[in-house]
Amino acid sequence: MASSEDIVLSAVLNLLSAFAFLVAFAILRLQPINDRVYFSKWYLKGIRASPRSSGTFVKKIVNLDCRTYIRFLNWMPAALRMPEPELIDHAGLDSAVYIRIYLLGLKIFVPLALLSFAVLVPVNWSGKSLEQTEGLTFSTIDKLSISNVPDASKKFWAHLAMAYVVTFWTCYILYKEYHIITTMRLQFLASENRRPDQFTVLVRNVPPDPDESVSEHVEHFFCVNHPDHYLTHQVVYNANNLAKLVEKKKSYKNWLTYYQTKYERNPKIKPKTKTGVWGLWGKTVDAIDYYTTEIEKLSKEETIEREKVMSDPKAIVPAAFVSFKSRWGAAVCAQTQQSSNPTIWLTQWAPEPRDIYWNNLSIPFVELNVRKLLMTVAFFFLTFFFMIPIAFVQSLASIDGIENKLPVLRPLIQKEVVKSFIQGVLPGIILKIFLVLLPMILMAMSKIEGYTSLSSLDRRSATKYHFFILVNVFLGSIITGAAFEQLQRFVDEPPSEIPKTVGVAMPLKATFFITYIMVDGWAGIAAEILRLVPFVMFHLKNTFLVKTDQDREQATDPGSLNFSVSEPRIQLYFLLGLVYSVVTPILLPFIIVFFAFSYMVFRHQIINVYDQKYESGASFWPDVHRRILTGLVISQLLLLGLLSTKNIAKSTPVMIALPVLTIWFHIFCKGRYESAFIKFPLQDAMVKDTLERATEPTLNLKAYLKDAYVHPVFKGVELDRPSAVDDEENNPLVPTKRSRRSSKSHSEEGV
Amino acid sequence: MASSEDIVLSAVLNLLSAFAFLVAFAILRLQPINDRVYFSKWYLKGIRASPRSSGTFVKKIVNLDCRTYIRFLNWMPAALRMPEPELIDHAGLDSAVYIRIYLLGLKIFVPLALLSFAVLVPVNWSGKSLEQTEGLTFSTIDKLSISNVPDASKKFWAHLAMAYVVTFWTCYILYKEYHIITTMRLQFLASENRRPDQFTVLVRNVPPDPDESVSEHVEHFFCVNHPDHYLTHQVVYNANNLAKLVEKKKSYKNWLTYYQTKYERNPKIKPKTKTGVWGLWGKTVDAIDYYTTEIEKLSKEETIEREKVMSDPKAIVPAAFVSFKSRWGAAVCAQTQQSSNPTIWLTQWAPEPRDIYWNNLSIPFVELNVRKLLMTVAFFFLTFFFMIPIAFVQSLASIDGIENKLPVLRPLIQKEVVKSFIQGVLPGIILKIFLVLLPMILMAMSKIEGYTSLSSLDRRSATKYHFFILVNVFLGSIITGAAFEQLQRFVDEPPSEIPKTVGVAMPLKATFFITYIMVDGWAGIAAEILRLVPFVMFHLKNTFLVKTDQDREQATDPGSLNFSVSEPRIQLYFLLGLVYSVVTPILLPFIIVFFAFSYMVFRHQIINVYDQKYESGASFWPDVHRRILTGLVISQLLLLGLLSTKNIAKSTPVMIALPVLTIWFHIFCKGRYESAFIKFPLQDAMVKDTLERATEPTLNLKAYLKDAYVHPVFKGVELDRPSAVDDEENNPLVPTKRSRRSSKSHSEEGV
Repeated sequence: MASSEDIVLSAVLNLLSAFAFLVAFAILRLQPINDRVYFSKWYLKGIRASPRSSGTFVKKIVNLDCRTYIRFLNWMPAALRMPEPELIDHAGLDSAVYIRIYLLGLKIFVPLALLSFAVLVPVNWSGKSLEQTEGLTFSTIDKLSISNVPDASKKFWAHLAMAYVVTFWTCYILYKEYHIITTMRLQFLASENRRPDQFTVLVRNVPPDPDESVSEHVEHFFCVNHPDHYLTHQVVYNANNLAKLVEKKKSYKNWLTYYQTKYERNPKIKPKTKTGVWGLWGKTVDAIDYYTTEIEKLSKEETIEREKVMSDPKAIVPAAFVSFKSRWGAAVCAQTQQSSNPTIWLTQWAPEPRDIYWNNLSIPFVELNVRKLLMTVAFFFLTFFFMIPIAFVQSLASIDGIENKLPVLRPLIQKEVVKSFIQGVLPGIILKIFLVLLPMILMAMSKIEGYTSLSSLDRRSATKYHFFILVNVFLGSIITGAAFEQLQRFVDEPPSEIPKTVGVAMPLKATFFITYIMVDGWAGIAAEILRLVPFVMFHLKNTFLVKTDQDREQATDPGSLNFSVSEPRIQLYFLLGLVYSVVTPILLPFIIVFFAFSYMVFRHQIINVYDQKYESGASFWPDVHRRILTGLVISQLLLLGLLSTKNIAKSTPVMIALPVLTIWFHIFCKGRYESAFIKFPLQDAMVKDTLERATEPTLNLKAYLKDAYVHPVFKGVELDRPSAVDDEENNPLVPTKRSRRSSKSHSEEGV
Repeated sequence: MASSEDIVLSAVLNLLSAFAFLVAFAILRLQPINDRVYFSKWYLKGIRASPRSSGTFVKKIVNLDCRTYIRFLNWMPAALRMPEPELIDHAGLDSAVYIRIYLLGLKIFVPLALLSFAVLVPVNWSGKSLEQTEGLTFSTIDKLSISNVPDASKKFWAHLAMAYVVTFWTCYILYKEYHIITTMRLQFLASENRRPDQFTVLVRNVPPDPDESVSEHVEHFFCVNHPDHYLTHQVVYNANNLAKLVEKKKSYKNWLTYYQTKYERNPKIKPKTKTGVWGLWGKTVDAIDYYTTEIEKLSKEETIEREKVMSDPKAIVPAAFVSFKSRWGAAVCAQTQQSSNPTIWLTQWAPEPRDIYWNNLSIPFVELNVRKLLMTVAFFFLTFFFMIPIAFVQSLASIDGIENKLPVLRPLIQKEVVKSFIQGVLPGIILKIFLVLLPMILMAMSKIEGYTSLSSLDRRSATKYHFFILVNVFLGSIITGAAFEQLQRFVDEPPSEIPKTVGVAMPLKATFFITYIMVDGWAGIAAEILRLVPFVMFHLKNTFLVKTDQDREQATDPGSLNFSVSEPRIQLYFLLGLVYSVVTPILLPFIIVFFAFSYMVFRHQIINVYDQKYESGASFWPDVHRRILTGLVISQLLLLGLLSTKNIAKSTPVMIALPVLTIWFHIFCKGRYESAFIKFPLQDAMVKDTLERATEPTLNLKAYLKDAYVHPVFKGVELDRPSAVDDEENNPLVPTKRSRRSSKSHSEEGV
């Protein structure tokens, strides 16, 4: 067990490394050459001009003004200065609410830490149980934890009371926060400008019709069933192949530019490349010629594919974006069931155009269900049995394994350095690679499950990742052993034993988690602000590919908040804080430092760097709320288990009320607030409609919505619109006529 | 353990008693005097005239035609003769679908029984494990069960295969049945005549407004937010007190009639009564005078209360029935969220007028949540700890208890007969009384939970009762011991142990359950057809209260299917069938007899006797479906537990797939069909609207809906309608004007 000196040493080391990251960041960000890496958001907004355009050449690259170095930490107050409404305006609600998660952590844990230090630390310290047990090694941290209180002591009532305080305080803060976020979301939606998704509904599973095309079928169905509100629709083309071609062409163009630049700089050597994968294998050819012909070939293919997609009726998937004359009409269509068969004509709010995941728009109902089943089973095995393939790969990567498979490498392996590398580092690296790949695997699984928007994919992956962390990091660290051993234990041990086992092991792991918080939390956040990977990528691209300022713009990767990865990690800190607030309060300050530091860093990042890929209006908040409550319930159950081993009569009934109340609180909050994140109330829609009708009576909504929901590869290309849309004038269907007529009378009256 | 001779004896006894009931029924139903008891449905429909109106006096009471006695069982084929569409027309969809549950039982278990007898019975019989174990007593039934197969035998693969067959067959039949019921429901809804609930939405939690009354507030809100569709609304009066007065007056009137009849028959003695409770205590007075004055007093009170309710704005609860111009408008309003605060302006389909539970229309959101929490906790304690208060009451009702509390009774108790009665029968009677009261307790709990329609109250009570039966009858019989001991065991034993414990005990309990099926099932159903309680009540009322034919009509209690009690009981038989189909197939014929017999009896009852209190359109089917699947999963887990003790390698992974697939099947069916029972699709609404507009262009819907949703105590009384409704002409609100104007243009165009 780590002594308190070890902890102090580790804290100092981690603080130093975090500090080193910060200093590196402070210096790098002041160099004009890095300006686009550390202030990319401002460039995207067009507010900041390139500093390289003025001054001498050296000044363009290196900052020689010493005064700026002295105030190298002044980005911190600057990050905190922007007021929240401006922040929402600048970076979007998603980002603004995301950093509020860190703030929420501070709100919950600062008062709890103060109270714990005032009450529980003296109580634990005066317990003296550890000192009286002979032959036991223990650290100062243990003396401050619940382990130091002797069995059956009356002092445990302090811990019980503290558990109640933790629960009620957390719920109170969560309730207030849910209220604030809901209000922010509603205000945000209400104050938003006109956006295509406010008028549009995504319709999936359009049933096949032998006599009509998808487009005609959609048109007729909505003309009949929403006669006063239907405006227009946009069919969805299966442009996945086309998108691949476009992507490939873009990459080839990058290579062409690279070789051209190379050739210009050194006109003596004609650059060569190989035709195989990544230019490593195959025939050697002249690079510029090769890529020029390849790009030409691809352009032709692209044109053919584009025509094929637009003319082939089979390339139209049975889904459509249906737009309405008013937000009210869209809200009605999105929330109601259209057909008596609930597996066809499925309607939901259209995600905003850039949020759509185009590949998943056309999955039939039964297939969707089968996919979900398969992915659930796969995720179960991934969570509990991932160690088995990892161990297998690790065994392959052992000395014997490599010698058997690749005898060629034997002389190399015999060397001492290589040998010790393989034995010592390789297994760890393999595990690490898996853990780095894990979020991508989870995202791929979510994509297979068939979600239709990037935001829902992110949320879904986050749910999976959270569960994985819970089982493999939290429980895995407390009950050491692989996850499938835990699973075995869950099945074979009585349910009352598990909280006991985990609860008893919990105080002993406090020092481990303190170290974890410092390494993964503190240093990780400091590394985040340095942005090492985008930094390197930018300079590589800048050197080889950039010719114009526009190129430079494209070379910058501003990045974005990666909700699916970072939110579940924050949840681990919430869980640790809630679990240890009663057991080992000394852990709380470390968590508080993490939250405060993260809040500052991410506030800086969303102001200066990140550019969100989509705006979902904080629709992830119910998930965050639910996961914190899950953490709370886990902490209560573990404390219940721990206390039940301490011979305190009556503690169980007192403790059991807490999870019941917490779960009830969850149901209550769900009923009270969740619908604000799923549905769009008619009242608000009507207010916006009325306002718009008054302010812009002559608005041509149809023209406005015309190309909003076109697949990105068709953007800017004039589409052959299906004739049905413009056929309205000659359409003999009665409801269509009525709809047009009443829409005219609307616009006459509406003024 | 019961031997097979005992079973045969018991079967004979129960068959005889069931037969006795049937004979009694056959004789009683042929007597004209009982005609109204056994053919009440036909009287209510006005098709059957009283047989007493013609013929001699004796013939009016006793049937002397011998030929009819010979064919005393011919009600059975008669019950089966009516085709289903006619049955739906005659008795409603609820009843027609309810008896399909029994049919479903036959569809599932008849093929399974045949297969089991062909495959498993020979396999078990040839096992010979029991015969080889010395000193074991066993019956023929045990020889036919899985217990007879020796450990680690290859024969268990037959049982595993059978478990798969049971699962897939049950799911297949359930899927088909869900499809049929959904189609029936949709057809039923589509073919229904115009009904007020098709146009009406129940709005609850109308927020208070300082400037407007509830009625004005509702009017304005819906005029603004549903301008083209809003028609009218009906506020809800808190008439609970008034309803009580009306009820009391009715009962007093009955007593008055009783004493008047008594006096007329015997004019010498003036009937007397006492003023206390039930006429048992208090001052003796002249009965006729007393009740006449009391009724007058009540009439005055009623008038005052009626005026108070209708004039006092506080008597209007914050809820209203809002009606729309079209089914489409109502469907939209019922399915969408109105306000950004999801706890106000809650909309849901209005139940049909007679289905409304008026007392619960005005519960605020937070209170509703607290009520649900309290009832959940209370139900938990009721299920698991109900034996504790029962045992306490039983101890009070013991000899010593009574002697201590009521020493007066000591001489009486000392008598041997009384003593043995108290010791032997009283505890059983106390438990029986509790079990009879239980459905009422559960219904009261559901009422406290705040459901707004009788049908949802019935469904909710059924869910509770099902869980209670599952824990206390099914598990309680297998693992003997009170429920809280089971609970203890569930907490303290590993989850893998529980299916084992229960699974191993399961085959041994087969004989017990066979007896249970015969006593509770066979004899219970036979008693159902005799209708002993309504029979006695009718004749009592007929003797003392009936003066006119109208009185006689009121004296008949046709009764109705009591879904909340009888459906959970059927579920127990499904569970037993599914559990024992693999373990002890010999049980299946008993279940099949139960289902077949019940089907016939209930088909007869719904044709001739029952009168449903409401029509919900089979909206209970998703519950039935879910509970059968629950039974299926339980049966799979128990078999898994049983087989895991039999040393068959690889049985666990083979078995574990079954519950996973079953749960997935449940999710699939839920997505596929459930919404047909909750939502009303816009397409269907539009079809009905269009049809109606074409056939009845001049329909005055407002007049039609005027009094549809008036509290029953106001029925027939002219209400002072709140002025807001008719104020429309002078209302300066723009949207209201628009709504009226466009409604005019609608009716002009609609023709």
